[in-house]
Amino acid sequence: MNNISKNDLTDLTQQIFEHSGFSEKDSRHCAEVLVFADVRGIDSHGVARLPGYLRLIDAGRINPNPIFKWNIRKSTTGTLDADGAIGLISASAAMKKTIEICDQFGSGWIAVNNSNHFGVASYHATLGFSKNYMGFAMTNASPLVVPAGGKERMLGTNPICIAIPGKNGKDFILDMATSAAANGKLEIAQRNGIDIPSGWAIDSDGKETISANAIKDNGALLPLGSQENTGLHKGYGLGSWVDIFSGVISGAAFGPWCPPFVAFLEPKPNTNGKGLGHFVGCWDLDGFQNSDIIQKNLNVWRKAFEESNPINPNKPVLIPGDPEKKFQQERESNGIPLNLNVVKSLEEICNTHNIKSPF
Amino acid sequence: MNNISKNDLTDLTQQIFEHSGFSEKDSRHCAEVLVFADVRGIDSHGVARLPGYLRLIDAGRINPNPIFKWNIRKSTTGTLDADGAIGLISASAAMKKTIEICDQFGSGWIAVNNSNHFGVASYHATLGFSKNYMGFAMTNASPLVVPAGGKERMLGTNPICIAIPGKNGKDFILDMATSAAANGKLEIAQRNGIDIPSGWAIDSDGKETISANAIKDNGALLPLGSQENTGLHKGYGLGSWVDIFSGVISGAAFGPWCPPFVAFLEPKPNTNGKGLGHFVGCWDLDGFQNSDIIQKNLNVWRKAFEESNPINPNKPVLIPGDPEKKFQQERESNGIPLNLNVVKSLEEICNTHNIKSPF
Repeated sequence: MNNISKNDLTDLTQQIFEHSGFSEKDSRHCAEVLVFADVRGIDSHGVARLPGYLRLIDAGRINPNPIFKWNIRKSTTGTLDADGAIGLISASAAMKKTIEICDQFGSGWIAVNNSNHFGVASYHATLGFSKNYMGFAMTNASPLVVPAGGKERMLGTNPICIAIPGKNGKDFILDMATSAAANGKLEIAQRNGIDIPSGWAIDSDGKETISANAIKDNGALLPLGSQENTGLHKGYGLGSWVDIFSGVISGAAFGPWCPPFVAFLEPKPNTNGKGLGHFVGCWDLDGFQNSDIIQKNLNVWRKAFEESNPINPNKPVLIPGDPEKKFQQERESNGIPLNLNVVKSLEEICNTHNIKSPF
Repeated sequence: MNNISKNDLTDLTQQIFEHSGFSEKDSRHCAEVLVFADVRGIDSHGVARLPGYLRLIDAGRINPNPIFKWNIRKSTTGTLDADGAIGLISASAAMKKTIEICDQFGSGWIAVNNSNHFGVASYHATLGFSKNYMGFAMTNASPLVVPAGGKERMLGTNPICIAIPGKNGKDFILDMATSAAANGKLEIAQRNGIDIPSGWAIDSDGKETISANAIKDNGALLPLGSQENTGLHKGYGLGSWVDIFSGVISGAAFGPWCPPFVAFLEPKPNTNGKGLGHFVGCWDLDGFQNSDIIQKNLNVWRKAFEESNPINPNKPVLIPGDPEKKFQQERESNGIPLNLNVVKSLEEICNTHNIKSPF
């Protein structure tokens, strides 16, 4: 039995961050962001990443006690130098700042530099939902993805999240990597000893491969679109947009200079910018029309798509964000079915830090 | 010899709009937007669309003399009821309003309803380049694209454009449909009597097809990603984002209710909103960092990608927007090589309106 309740997992994760030098408040926040991903079924971005974050903390590449430097240059725009913070903290802080700006001006935008991986984008993007603010969040990441026509890893899987608050939780939440498949999917195929579909990766010569070891063997991931004649250049364009907004605009590193997530790889020297970067912001629904009217029509929109003709009669058309919502309802009731390896890694952390294991 | 100079084509197009009841100023603007597309090699969105627009004007579905109603609800956000205007005019007007807002607040956003097709998104999105404003433009469109798992046409090819001004024209301009391929590409294959690649379209049963007649035969276009295991749901998510911002947020029609571009198909009754919709906006580069620093780093970004290792040594990696820039340089010097059918349709219009043909 590996199911663990949301509360127990959050408490445990909080303790682990506290043992790593984070304040109680920041530890609680980090725990909530990671467990939010687990609860919503995005297991790759939940506590499974904890050992990776801890190794970066140990290596001095994540600062547990950062001092934020804000540089608000216009009424609605500015940057945050996150002082090497974990992105789980800095992206939420930036989003909260844009919410304050939005209170006054109807929209707000912060580009973050000198940060680290921010976990699941939708956590940050939904922070203004109680005020009926639409959220926007993107981040660059360690290079794994080729540009269209290229065979060199130049971009991260660079996600885009757009979150639109509906009535009574009938939201629209798009949170997507701009690569055809996430690296986590290759790792799962690798563990299961199976091939990957064509369209996910190329080998080191730039040829399409179905080997789950593509990344290990110096290959790379393909952008969304996968092939030249099915819009590969569009996925490349989207990933580039994310990189330029998160890196070039913010003052963070970008492209091939983005620092690696794994602690055993050193960041490159002369990175043209500091750490990883994010770009977050929000718009007030009421800044366009009365939010009641917008949300009424969003329900009409949702219903039209849900009731549209599916290819397979047993598989109705889904609304972005709804599969995660379903996981959330299920896991908040029945607990989170953690992977055995994740449980093992958490137990090891508990041993090292002398924390009572809940397993 | 079908090459025509940019100026001659613009003058001709202006005359045609004037003969259709548009003011001189609006006619000039419409001509400039259409010819901008032709000059940049986006032939599908240039004067080739003129007959389609004219039929909509004749059918009373485009209003040549609209009265705009602005509803600016917050400092940086609002809507425009375009009174049935052609999108070429209303999207640019909305963008110019966001530029004014941006002058004061560092960013600005307008959602447009009661409009029509706006031509090429990048024209509008680049209007703030002289002020170093990044532009953003999207529009919904007549339904041709299925949602992930669906076989019903629910979305337009719904483009997203993001335009970042560089130093001396070293810009980044991403302007992409959110479908795997544009309908224009099917039409070209149809004319040439060849099959289309798999991944572009499905037939009326929801099965993948390589028939160039897919749309004619009641099939539909696939979202970017094309297949379930290569991220089809992401293209669907992006197209949905565009539809909700352009339609639901603005008060325009959305999803299956978007009015058709072809005049022989009637718009549906009870559309939950008025006409087509757009969503445009901009951010001031200087709102984040000194724009000199950002543009210097954008050049570093560009150079890194241009010089990255290509799969084919003769095909270097390209920057989004650069292929169109190359067309622009070439065609501004040597004229625009119009397709014979397009020339014929322009000559017909000239005959009908008693305009001297330049061909």
